Amino acid sequence: MFKTKLENIIKSKNSLLCIGLDCDIEKIPRFLLDESDPLLTFNKEIIKATAPYAIAFKPNISFYESLGIAGWTLLEKTLEYIPSDAIIIADAKRGDIGNSCRKYADLFFNTYTFDAITVSPYMGFDSIQPFLEFDDRCTFVLCLTSNEGSHDFQYLNIDSEPLYMKIARKVSEWNLTYNNCGLVVGGTHPEDIGSIREIAPHLPFLIPGIGTQGGNLKSTIQYGAGSAASSAIINVGRSILYASSEKDFAVTARVKAQYFRNEINRFRSENKNFQSIR
Amino acid sequence: MFKTKLENIIKSKNSLLCIGLDCDIEKIPRFLLDESDPLLTFNKEIIKATAPYAIAFKPNISFYESLGIAGWTLLEKTLEYIPSDAIIIADAKRGDIGNSCRKYADLFFNTYTFDAITVSPYMGFDSIQPFLEFDDRCTFVLCLTSNEGSHDFQYLNIDSEPLYMKIARKVSEWNLTYNNCGLVVGGTHPEDIGSIREIAPHLPFLIPGIGTQGGNLKSTIQYGAGSAASSAIINVGRSILYASSEKDFAVTARVKAQYFRNEINRFRSENKNFQSIR
Repeated sequence: MFKTKLENIIKSKNSLLCIGLDCDIEKIPRFLLDESDPLLTFNKEIIKATAPYAIAFKPNISFYESLGIAGWTLLEKTLEYIPSDAIIIADAKRGDIGNSCRKYADLFFNTYTFDAITVSPYMGFDSIQPFLEFDDRCTFVLCLTSNEGSHDFQYLNIDSEPLYMKIARKVSEWNLTYNNCGLVVGGTHPEDIGSIREIAPHLPFLIPGIGTQGGNLKSTIQYGAGSAASSAIINVGRSILYASSEKDFAVTARVKAQYFRNEINRFRSENKNFQSIR
Repeated sequence: MFKTKLENIIKSKNSLLCIGLDCDIEKIPRFLLDESDPLLTFNKEIIKATAPYAIAFKPNISFYESLGIAGWTLLEKTLEYIPSDAIIIADAKRGDIGNSCRKYADLFFNTYTFDAITVSPYMGFDSIQPFLEFDDRCTFVLCLTSNEGSHDFQYLNIDSEPLYMKIARKVSEWNLTYNNCGLVVGGTHPEDIGSIREIAPHLPFLIPGIGTQGGNLKSTIQYGAGSAASSAIINVGRSILYASSEKDFAVTARVKAQYFRNEINRFRSENKNFQSIR
């Protein structure tokens, strides 16, 4: 079971931090360009440096896929460096008709054995079911995303509640059957995370948008990871990966990862007090 | 301009037919398995056989990506066989935050030089803009999809009209600036295509769902490609690709492609009469 695995790792590492492995040749320290495989060296160093504080690693597939065949080789090799006590999430945001999604599920869950994937809800249940059929993995459905464009459709009102709430309700319903669903909720909308948490108290949340994207960590924890039963994975990418562009990039990433892990834990413990007072 | 190119090809080939290149090792004729590259041989023969009747070829990326590195090589080689008088559409259904979508756009439009791509609307404008910035290409946004799951969210009512109509309105609005948008509307909902056509009379429609998925061709043409100004690309995949599993598979695919081209044209001409009587 994914959820048990996640909860055990959260406990043993005392962390909710996920590292977004969005490696970009234009952003990595310049001195790495002398290496035979700069991006792999970068990923390897980042993983090694941050692993003590990270419960999960999340490569955004676009960064690998955009490099063509070399990118898939990079992804394969990168995965080998991720320690077994961390969750690996394919941030793929796929969504297609059933026979196409069966192909994607086969790639990410059989060929690559990711623990979890992100998918888009727009095409509905039969576009997501092929992923749900892998009962020991987790399928995180986009619910309320961290970007500005989330306001275009996700906030449209249906029966006096926004579309993202309908998505949260529907995914919670699917979870009654499959028990392996999660939701992507952006840390840039912390109060709205609270409404989603009410509908889906036990679903794991994958929370991007912290760091460069400006999400508020304190409120995100308060509303999204408030109780022990509500597991959350809080992703930080660029703020850790590119904290230094010098030779000390890995050490700096480690310090940053430790900082985010500790900040998250500080707000978790404040929140525990807040909850017990309430 | 994509739209001019499309309209010229529609005229010169007198066709609206697109071939969905969804090659599947489990479905191609068994005797091809003796070839050194069965899927490439299959694609090459299908393209050669159907090209006289096809204005476009649309590989669904899942079928290639699921094969890992070998699949991307297959895709690259397949593209080389597509004649220059056909549109090439990456059916990728991507959608992510801006910096990730810039990566996807770079892959599909720079590395692979596809004429068009399909994208998911859920994450809103900034997830689609990186594609729109390629002004000589076309970005087909999922509006009303052909699968059963389209009923889960796309039909939810917002201010007394379904979500897919809001998407159509928003994409039409973006098109005022970019003039290179299109919509994906499934042939399994022909009457609803009519409502979308009213909102977006001049946007090219990419229409899947005809053939195996059971879409109604006559009504699809009537509602979706009724006037000369309304260009449409009608995709047929499995019904042509796997019409025969014997040595005659390519000839049979050609006959099927010709059949669909002719049926589409028959309904187009009926519709012209229908329109002039009205």
